[in-house]
Amino acid sequence: MQKSQGNFMQGKFITIDGVEGAGKSTQSDLIYQYLADKGINIKRTREPGGTEMGEKIRTLLLSNSTGKMHADTELMLMFAARNEHIQNKIIPALAQGDWVLSDRFSDASYAYQGGGRGLNMARISQLESWVLQSFTPDMTFLLDVPVEIGMKRIESRGEKDRIEQESLDFFNRVRNVYIERSKQYPDRIKLIDASQSVENTLSQIQEILKML
Amino acid sequence: MQKSQGNFMQGKFITIDGVEGAGKSTQSDLIYQYLADKGINIKRTREPGGTEMGEKIRTLLLSNSTGKMHADTELMLMFAARNEHIQNKIIPALAQGDWVLSDRFSDASYAYQGGGRGLNMARISQLESWVLQSFTPDMTFLLDVPVEIGMKRIESRGEKDRIEQESLDFFNRVRNVYIERSKQYPDRIKLIDASQSVENTLSQIQEILKML
Ligand SMILES: Nc1ncnc2c1ncn2[C@@H]1O[C@H](COP(=O)(O)OP(=O)(O)OP(=O)(O)O)[C@@H](O)[C@H]1O
Ligand SMILES: Nc1ncnc2c1ncn2[C@@H]1O[C@H](COP(=O)(O)OP(=O)(O)OP(=O)(O)O)[C@@H](O)[C@H]1O
Ligand SMILES: [Mg+2]
Ligand SMILES: [Mg+2]
Repeated sequence: MQKSQGNFMQGKFITIDGVEGAGKSTQSDLIYQYLADKGINIKRTREPGGTEMGEKIRTLLLSNSTGKMHADTELMLMFAARNEHIQNKIIPALAQGDWVLSDRFSDASYAYQGGGRGLNMARISQLESWVLQSFTPDMTFLLDVPVEIGMKRIESRGEKDRIEQESLDFFNRVRNVYIERSKQYPDRIKLIDASQSVENTLSQIQEILKML
Repeated sequence: MQKSQGNFMQGKFITIDGVEGAGKSTQSDLIYQYLADKGINIKRTREPGGTEMGEKIRTLLLSNSTGKMHADTELMLMFAARNEHIQNKIIPALAQGDWVLSDRFSDASYAYQGGGRGLNMARISQLESWVLQSFTPDMTFLLDVPVEIGMKRIESRGEKDRIEQESLDFFNRVRNVYIERSKQYPDRIKLIDASQSVENTLSQIQEILKML
């Protein structure tokens, strides 16, 4: 949470975002370890999901048996899951002074439903404000990697989910929106070159975390 | 759809709303029969649900195994299901000149999430505008009945769903919002005394349908 937006919570809220296979889960593990080693109470979580209700919505969103849905519907389901996540998990943790590290958050809605599906950015922002009001991460790491590299990293995984099955074009639009947003919100969204090794990517992140 | 709102659709969109056990399903059957007998192509549907995706969301919303959810989440899930309903079923039918008769629609969100759960009406209206834009039923029949009478009518049914388990107070708040809305939108929402017999309730509705 940004203190400037008038909340009194002690904990910091950090999110990690980026295209498929950028290394979000890998770096989440490492950041978690790094901060825990410094004695910080930190909770890991992910989106869509993160709560019982959210995981049910996640299943609806990602299951291949779900079939086609309208982009507005997809966005509302994402924000419905996100609302449960914020109300039942993120805010309670921050309020008791813990830090929270989330694998994906709102930026993904702009990237996937805005860039990928072509939803109007102003409409996404309206729904985001409706749900989040002034709630924002304190810091977001955008793990940036060319789409083909990310795809190659995860190609050995099993069946692709409903969103992973989209085209290269789709994911390039997703990536471009992430990059644009990091330019639009440079104080919050830190662009990390994630095409490098795991260690090198982590050290870029650690440099920035030292400033928090 | 209201022609005044600038659409060129031929069919009429009629909704039926009211508290549990008011007789919505019963009167839907009868209205359907009445209009079909007059040679009108009419499709029946219901909310939440009405589409494959919508029925999955309905299950999440009504299942007792779902547990507690935040009122904003409930509202977004309702509107996510409604959006699928409008885009994939209601608009295509109206566009080809059919009439559509829906057992519940947006007014229920004001009554249940607004009246029942206490969500701010202006916030509900913001989300409604986000989803529906200017789309509105041509006519809504509000089947009004004291909550206790409605409850008595359905008490022989099996297990109650997640929403049916709410208190008498909850449903009285729901009923009051429906009544207030019928006063606020008298041209669209027709209040019907549904505490009377099935036949008597139907004839009140038929009188109004003759004007369409
Ligand atoms: N910097 C890196 N260089 C090479 N391989 C990497 C790098 N980071 C992660 N990997 C490997 O790439 C694969 C994908 O990494 P990871 O699961 O962390 O990505 P992700 O962004 O979480 O993917 P998804 O979008 O599917 O959740 C894993 O097998 C991981 O070991
Ligand atoms: N006017 C009426 N007088 C007496 N009983 C009625 C009347 N209308 C319907 N019923 C009976 O009351 C019960 C509930 O009716 P119905 O299912 O139509 O209500 P509903 O509003 O659709 O309920 P729900 O909110 O659960 O969908 C049924 O058993 C029905 O036969
Ligand atoms: Mg991952
Ligand atoms: Mg019914």
